[in-house]
Amino acid sequence: MHYKKLLNRIYYFKKCVRKSSRQCLFHNVLIQSESKGCIINGKRIAEEIQNELKCSITEWLTKHPRKPSLVAVLVGEDPASVKYVEKKMEAAQSVGIDSRTENLPNTITESQLIGKINELNNDPAVDGILVQLPVPKHISERNICNAVDPLKDVDGFHFSNAGKLCLNMNAFVPCTVLAVIELIKRTGVETFGKHVVVCGRSKNIGLPLSILLHSDARNELPGLEATVTLCHRNTPPEQLEMFTKMADIVISATGVVHLIKGHMIKEGACVIDVGINRIQTPEGKVKLVGDVDFDSVVKVAKHVTPVPGGVGPVTVAMLMKNTYLAAINHFR
Amino acid sequence: MHYKKLLNRIYYFKKCVRKSSRQCLFHNVLIQSESKGCIINGKRIAEEIQNELKCSITEWLTKHPRKPSLVAVLVGEDPASVKYVEKKMEAAQSVGIDSRTENLPNTITESQLIGKINELNNDPAVDGILVQLPVPKHISERNICNAVDPLKDVDGFHFSNAGKLCLNMNAFVPCTVLAVIELIKRTGVETFGKHVVVCGRSKNIGLPLSILLHSDARNELPGLEATVTLCHRNTPPEQLEMFTKMADIVISATGVVHLIKGHMIKEGACVIDVGINRIQTPEGKVKLVGDVDFDSVVKVAKHVTPVPGGVGPVTVAMLMKNTYLAAINHFR
Repeated sequence: MHYKKLLNRIYYFKKCVRKSSRQCLFHNVLIQSESKGCIINGKRIAEEIQNELKCSITEWLTKHPRKPSLVAVLVGEDPASVKYVEKKMEAAQSVGIDSRTENLPNTITESQLIGKINELNNDPAVDGILVQLPVPKHISERNICNAVDPLKDVDGFHFSNAGKLCLNMNAFVPCTVLAVIELIKRTGVETFGKHVVVCGRSKNIGLPLSILLHSDARNELPGLEATVTLCHRNTPPEQLEMFTKMADIVISATGVVHLIKGHMIKEGACVIDVGINRIQTPEGKVKLVGDVDFDSVVKVAKHVTPVPGGVGPVTVAMLMKNTYLAAINHFR
Repeated sequence: MHYKKLLNRIYYFKKCVRKSSRQCLFHNVLIQSESKGCIINGKRIAEEIQNELKCSITEWLTKHPRKPSLVAVLVGEDPASVKYVEKKMEAAQSVGIDSRTENLPNTITESQLIGKINELNNDPAVDGILVQLPVPKHISERNICNAVDPLKDVDGFHFSNAGKLCLNMNAFVPCTVLAVIELIKRTGVETFGKHVVVCGRSKNIGLPLSILLHSDARNELPGLEATVTLCHRNTPPEQLEMFTKMADIVISATGVVHLIKGHMIKEGACVIDVGINRIQTPEGKVKLVGDVDFDSVVKVAKHVTPVPGGVGPVTVAMLMKNTYLAAINHFR
């Protein structure tokens, strides 16, 4: 079956899942493909999380003077960034979080941007601040991430949140990392003592994800107790393939289109695709594809996330969760 | 040849190395065993580093009003801790660092200890503070590590230094981590695109070491560009063996006596033993052994560190380097 058709079936998943094999009956978040594997329904998982969150926030509001609040800082007008921020704002509204976007011009200087962030840091009506990345090239992304008050840093990019995550202390964890973990947990995939290959060592995804995957479950910020191999651009291709073939779970966050192919995957593995790559079709249209060659992988893997409709929506849901946590901390 | 005899040969290494095969001629820091492998001479590498450091500090002193200074905080009288602190103080003297030990009673409370640390944080005559671990059980090790001023945290245990390391920003890196990296570099073992297995996920050694091993060499705090598999107590033994057998470099920091045996190692690999375990001999004496079963591993590996005389002395040398860096920062 064609990939797009499969995606269309997402909305019929309940009916579909009932008909499908037992392996796909976990939590109603899987959809049986005509191949061997089940497709992890990221949209559905995001809905689940947002529904849970909506209930929690409604309950929380009975004891607190105002809604949790989130401010997105958007520099420039990059169409993809504009779209991402819109989606985040919509999700915020739907769960009961007050949200607004600060639109700033592309010509803003680094110190002006930090000044704006400081205003938001000092505003007691703001719980969470997210600066949509990338920022223009004349601005240091790292300086911007470190300028956000760690207590409002709902993206989890400040170095002190990175350090606390490293030590499994309570911290804001990057939303994509939380999303991958939720996808794994809600699909019922076991991690304890399993082998996970993480492709990509980015500071916002690959690295913190690998830390939480291998760390101890008995911590303040609990880990997943897996054995983790972290691969990256300088991992030789044959070495990468050797590791992915051995892995129980493969997670790719590299931005390399179709890096992970079916022949690189162990029968029955779980494959999570964090990549969001824009490619042009022969007809000149822009199409979103992941790091995973879905069509070949779905024939071998037991579970696989699609792009779009996999990690993306869950990431947005986890941003809402982080904002709610920031509000809880604010009023504690 | 017996392991102890080999260690005695350390002081004759130059003569020995000249006679030995070419593979052991790197930087005069290796000693040929009668088995296949070369023993990495940690004492010699520590001497090299301390000599370099002594020159740098002598030069630095011509432009600055006082020596770099280090204060060790020792709670209680644990014999091993007392001995470690003594070694550190001796090394400090030998490279031209002012040092002293604050001896505190076992009965001190956490807040009293934090008070003492704050005194040292506020003392402009102190560049580096190290709190010898472990602290008594009624005191939270994590709270103590986080109480040291990050700019004086020469052990690199404060969460903000952990976070900066995570992001490859300039930071104090734990001395044992620096020691392992120095041992690898000064032995001339290649890491780019190689596979390294790290056994142990401790926050002070295994985790930060794995981060520096796999991260990008082009950073402020440069990484070593290896592919890294992190194994730990919940890695099944057969999985551990599968990974160590594949690895170009195996580093063990677990505290499990003789976890790593010869049959688990690939021919020609490099094996770094971070373990320091005290065992009783049949004669009732206390003997230091590592995580690595040296006698069987030296027959297979190309390079292996002994215990004692491997990572330990280099760790002390790296503490001196961190203290010197703290002094440089202080006067910058």
